[in-house]
Amino acid sequence: MPERTDGNVLRGVIVAALTPLTVRLVPDLERLVDHCRRLLEQGCDGVLCLGTTGEASSLSMEERLAILDGLGEAGLGERLLVGVGCCAVPDTVRLARRAREIGAAGVLALPPFYYKKVTDAGLFASFAAVIEGVADPGLRLYLYHIPQNTGVPLGPRLVQRLHAAYPENVVGVKDSAGDWSYTETLLRLVPGFQVFSGTEEYLRANLRLGGPGCISATFNVLAPLAAQVYREWAGPQGDRLQARLTLLRRAFSQVPMVPALKAIVARQRRDPAWEHVRPPHVPLGEGATSALLENLRTAGLTIP
Amino acid sequence: MPERTDGNVLRGVIVAALTPLTVRLVPDLERLVDHCRRLLEQGCDGVLCLGTTGEASSLSMEERLAILDGLGEAGLGERLLVGVGCCAVPDTVRLARRAREIGAAGVLALPPFYYKKVTDAGLFASFAAVIEGVADPGLRLYLYHIPQNTGVPLGPRLVQRLHAAYPENVVGVKDSAGDWSYTETLLRLVPGFQVFSGTEEYLRANLRLGGPGCISATFNVLAPLAAQVYREWAGPQGDRLQARLTLLRRAFSQVPMVPALKAIVARQRRDPAWEHVRPPHVPLGEGATSALLENLRTAGLTIP
Repeated sequence: MPERTDGNVLRGVIVAALTPLTVRLVPDLERLVDHCRRLLEQGCDGVLCLGTTGEASSLSMEERLAILDGLGEAGLGERLLVGVGCCAVPDTVRLARRAREIGAAGVLALPPFYYKKVTDAGLFASFAAVIEGVADPGLRLYLYHIPQNTGVPLGPRLVQRLHAAYPENVVGVKDSAGDWSYTETLLRLVPGFQVFSGTEEYLRANLRLGGPGCISATFNVLAPLAAQVYREWAGPQGDRLQARLTLLRRAFSQVPMVPALKAIVARQRRDPAWEHVRPPHVPLGEGATSALLENLRTAGLTIP
Repeated sequence: MPERTDGNVLRGVIVAALTPLTVRLVPDLERLVDHCRRLLEQGCDGVLCLGTTGEASSLSMEERLAILDGLGEAGLGERLLVGVGCCAVPDTVRLARRAREIGAAGVLALPPFYYKKVTDAGLFASFAAVIEGVADPGLRLYLYHIPQNTGVPLGPRLVQRLHAAYPENVVGVKDSAGDWSYTETLLRLVPGFQVFSGTEEYLRANLRLGGPGCISATFNVLAPLAAQVYREWAGPQGDRLQARLTLLRRAFSQVPMVPALKAIVARQRRDPAWEHVRPPHVPLGEGATSALLENLRTAGLTIP
């Protein structure tokens, strides 16, 4: 068993990165590398690539592997949490192995999400097959709880059982349900377990309870403020900064997240190519983009 | 535009075939070919391979392609409806092309099922991208309405719009919601459109309304009776036969379908290897299998 590389444990503000696409809707690696670097410069502690926000489920295996190789070659491997969750175990194993090869800090794994009402025994067997398929003691796997997309919640008892069976491999959770009581339950139930909140609304609450921080889509456009909250959450301005961040986050509550974020990045960068999305997403459109920009400005975001 | 090969239009009793697995849980092509042949001998008019019952979402792209090649080499291509629906358009296109190469009668396509609450415009764009990606005027695509698994229903207006845009390619629907009013709405809305019921409970109702028949999982064990209903539905015994078939179908209403069917086939064939399932499914287990067998015998099924 190798030593834990604690220097590479994920903490803080992790951005669930968008995947820019060309006009032919294929991944635009150059823009992606540039985007990841900017976000790290803006204070993000890590980048989740190939997550829900990254439209990973709309990309083929080959496209996902090419993205990992590209990010690895750009020297970004160690800053990455890699979304690897597929419906088929062999696919998840393949992505997780590639993530390890590029030196990623961890992988984020959905449960198989086609079949519903499956048993905890079946979900346990599925994650166990992934871990044993990767067969790498250095694998650091985070469970991805996002029932609004999967229809397959990961209950605290299942999470606890997986961590107990694979304490070195099952190291945390991303709670994208935005359910604070779930996050809190898990943080108290499994001490030292890395339960990330999936919305920055709970960034400060998460840190206050000894949690590792937050993995969020909206950091694609809110990274500088989020990084400030992470630095100063315990200081005299912590409360005010968190309130400002929460207000900005809520501006996204009524829009489809991926097209909305791409529309805002396109405005921030003055680069309309950023608006491309793969179906089933559709671009946000001019009217909705203007309304969202107005809401974000009202909430305090400076956009050129 | 080539002529329609009406001799190969799917009609009648189409079995959603199970995928047998080896003890290492990899697809067992020999058992699969044997199973498909038996079902056709028992009177099935066609075989849906790589559907929900076939655990397709638990198989990698390579495993699915190998299955298609194997079924093609076994001379079964023309009897096949092939499940091709993936979350990513390029994957769906790849499977659909392979299905065409082996001479399959049609393909059955799920909507992308990871993102929820997507727009009809996004779903239309997704199916359009598949059809234009396959770029084959002979493609006969069936839309797979199974919201209990996808969380993404295909509303009648979307179906109608797709058929209107691609009348030669979008030729039907599989209604696995088991919602007769949905089937009926579509059969009346788009004359000549092939709306298959996803449960044999509605086989006779479907045929009576001019529908093409039924695609069902339970035909894996109920094929002979189903074939008899299809032959005699309009005759004096039609009502009685349908009632018997319905009763048998309902014996499966309280069990997980894939493990239950595999357990019954294992008993029918005296071949325990048939019980293997991939996670997140788990084997049905001895007690539940015995209870199910008892219910099936009570409902009139002869099992050795």
